[in-house]
Amino acid sequence: MNPVAFIREKREGKKHRREDLEAFLLGYLRDEVPDYQVAAWLMAAFLRGLDPEETLWLTETMARSGKVLDLSGLPHPVDKHSSGGVGDKVSLVVGPILAASGCTFAKMSGRGLAHTGGTIDKLESVPGWRGEMTEAEFLERARRVGLVIAAQSPDLAPLDGKLYALRDVTATVESVPLIASSIMSKKLAAGARSIVLDVKVGRGAFMKTLEEARLLAKTMVAIGQGAGRRVRALLTSMEAPLGRAVGNALEVREAIGALKGEGPGDLLEVALALAEEALKLEGLDPALARKALESGAALEKFRAFLEAQGGDPRAVEDFSLLPLAEEHPLLAEREGVVREVDAYKVGLAVLALGGGRKRKGEPIDHGVGVYLLQKPGDRVERGEALALVYHRRRGLEEALGYLREAYALGEEAHPAPLVLEAI
Amino acid sequence: MNPVAFIREKREGKKHRREDLEAFLLGYLRDEVPDYQVAAWLMAAFLRGLDPEETLWLTETMARSGKVLDLSGLPHPVDKHSSGGVGDKVSLVVGPILAASGCTFAKMSGRGLAHTGGTIDKLESVPGWRGEMTEAEFLERARRVGLVIAAQSPDLAPLDGKLYALRDVTATVESVPLIASSIMSKKLAAGARSIVLDVKVGRGAFMKTLEEARLLAKTMVAIGQGAGRRVRALLTSMEAPLGRAVGNALEVREAIGALKGEGPGDLLEVALALAEEALKLEGLDPALARKALESGAALEKFRAFLEAQGGDPRAVEDFSLLPLAEEHPLLAEREGVVREVDAYKVGLAVLALGGGRKRKGEPIDHGVGVYLLQKPGDRVERGEALALVYHRRRGLEEALGYLREAYALGEEAHPAPLVLEAI
Repeated sequence: MNPVAFIREKREGKKHRREDLEAFLLGYLRDEVPDYQVAAWLMAAFLRGLDPEETLWLTETMARSGKVLDLSGLPHPVDKHSSGGVGDKVSLVVGPILAASGCTFAKMSGRGLAHTGGTIDKLESVPGWRGEMTEAEFLERARRVGLVIAAQSPDLAPLDGKLYALRDVTATVESVPLIASSIMSKKLAAGARSIVLDVKVGRGAFMKTLEEARLLAKTMVAIGQGAGRRVRALLTSMEAPLGRAVGNALEVREAIGALKGEGPGDLLEVALALAEEALKLEGLDPALARKALESGAALEKFRAFLEAQGGDPRAVEDFSLLPLAEEHPLLAEREGVVREVDAYKVGLAVLALGGGRKRKGEPIDHGVGVYLLQKPGDRVERGEALALVYHRRRGLEEALGYLREAYALGEEAHPAPLVLEAI
Repeated sequence: MNPVAFIREKREGKKHRREDLEAFLLGYLRDEVPDYQVAAWLMAAFLRGLDPEETLWLTETMARSGKVLDLSGLPHPVDKHSSGGVGDKVSLVVGPILAASGCTFAKMSGRGLAHTGGTIDKLESVPGWRGEMTEAEFLERARRVGLVIAAQSPDLAPLDGKLYALRDVTATVESVPLIASSIMSKKLAAGARSIVLDVKVGRGAFMKTLEEARLLAKTMVAIGQGAGRRVRALLTSMEAPLGRAVGNALEVREAIGALKGEGPGDLLEVALALAEEALKLEGLDPALARKALESGAALEKFRAFLEAQGGDPRAVEDFSLLPLAEEHPLLAEREGVVREVDAYKVGLAVLALGGGRKRKGEPIDHGVGVYLLQKPGDRVERGEALALVYHRRRGLEEALGYLREAYALGEEAHPAPLVLEAI
């Protein structure tokens, strides 16, 4: 493999051979191929595309570039991925449901960036809870509790981490084959047999249109199946935030409420749909999901999960153990029906309050956020509270500005479906 | 200027702003923008293109990135560039003609690479001659002799040198705007008012088709004119080598012969055409070119030029002062009319003999080469010598193989024009 000839091949829109692709990329991992050659190749791949086979080879090369977990001895190992949204606490509900339904839900999660949150950040609201652990601890908790959520380990798919960092600084992020292979490489390395993908579509998501989301979903499903896994993707709406809570501790509270059967309905709808798909992939009865919720078994799993990872399990009953900032209401300036609540703007509001990070590595405040009292379809009077803003002074005015823009009031709302498509 | 946003702009096929392009590229020159970002941008520029304004801005940024020579006080400063061919010793003939016609021919030249030779390599066949000099020496010789040819100085257009090195290892060389801007940046920095461009077309050239050559020529002319210079390009054929001699000392001998009016006709035709264009650009009588040749004034200039740069001027009369390797004839295996002599194959033959370099910095042998006794249109008998090969044993068989492939014999030849188009 000659790196210049390899780059030229993609520049000319030709297809690579599997062994060349592997040699080029593993050469990069070992610092034998320099970053400027990989940068040129990434741009060529971005603009010329990678076909399904190349995308699979890229994914498998990344997946095998580091440790690969073996969950094959555990009952029904399942994993879940979300393409990222605002108020997306679905993993906190799906995980306990599946664990209580006889599956092993063993997942690596990321941290939040830009207007979207991350599962690890959310869980860190619980005093003592830690997402960092050894491989042995991960496997032990998966076996004992059936539910473990760890911070993404740099030992898994290290080539993906290295390539992603380079894409980030070379304007080569927003490519479907590159995004899909990055996500799926980590899923393949994490070892689950079945994978459910929640591909968010809309203003608050990275995929703004159904068409883009469908392409990403199809690409990820094809990769997973090509690699011998069972995969199902749901396209779900991210026009408005999911649930009412946006912000780390607020979302944990809401997820616990959902596990108690209290709603909100949209969160439960998405969580149950994903759980049912995972159960079907594993050949289990999808009705187990609702049973796990209604029996309280899912909540019990969540409590055990918090405890196994060092968190205070009393947080499940006593929300005063979770951080909460000062409350400030956002009042309606007119009466009307809430037509839209723009998820992206709400995400920006929470970011302004310090609940997210603009750059990797920034600290975040778990106690700030927004609670949406009114959602699309709700009728409000002038002067009524639309939302509660939890803040530490910093960024409050900016956040209120975003929220005023986020709320669109009118005469009537046209509710749209939440689960749009299954792939 | 945010580098990632800048790269994304080109990735999306958008047009840059002049100040952003300058900031990005000068940032690279100062090592503030890393090479991997420039590599990604180069690939985006390669695949998305640069429009004429962007190409001009790129060229001017490179031209101004280092020293810029001021030849404005000298009479009729002219420069010449060739896109590179086999047996291309045109500069050695055009330069003296123009100097003897009242112009200042002050030129920077490169060294040979791959199947093509370089003017500096050729002139180094003359004992003592040196192309390295200070800026002061360059200007003094330009003023005193009217003719100076220097090795490309790294102080001129250093950004071009740095970018070219990166393009070379990232498969981003063969882009018309990038090639044209690279060439023209050095011409702009070298300070001549008028520039004639010899764009070679055909098997022995980098541009294989008239269409490609025309696009390159138009792009270079537009850059030069955009930068306020007078520019004219001739597209000339490079199907067969130019003249009969290919190889460094052999080509110097042939050029001296041409300056003595001895031919060969094709070399004189191209040299006179370019010289006449340069004279017209400077508002001088194009008939001066032929007069300079016929009067012997051009030969006299060449002698003075050799001497001014440390070369032995007696080489003009006494060819035994020039190196010459052992001679071996290539015999015709059949009778017929020479239909074609493939310039590329002849270039490879000389490369095999050690007369060129496969990699930058390799030493070359000035005494080896090929002398074509028969050219297209000539009738040969079986067993008659087609060419003489000058060799040091090394690569002789390989060279003879290439030459046998280069010669195509048939029933009749269809001579094609040499100067194809003026732009």
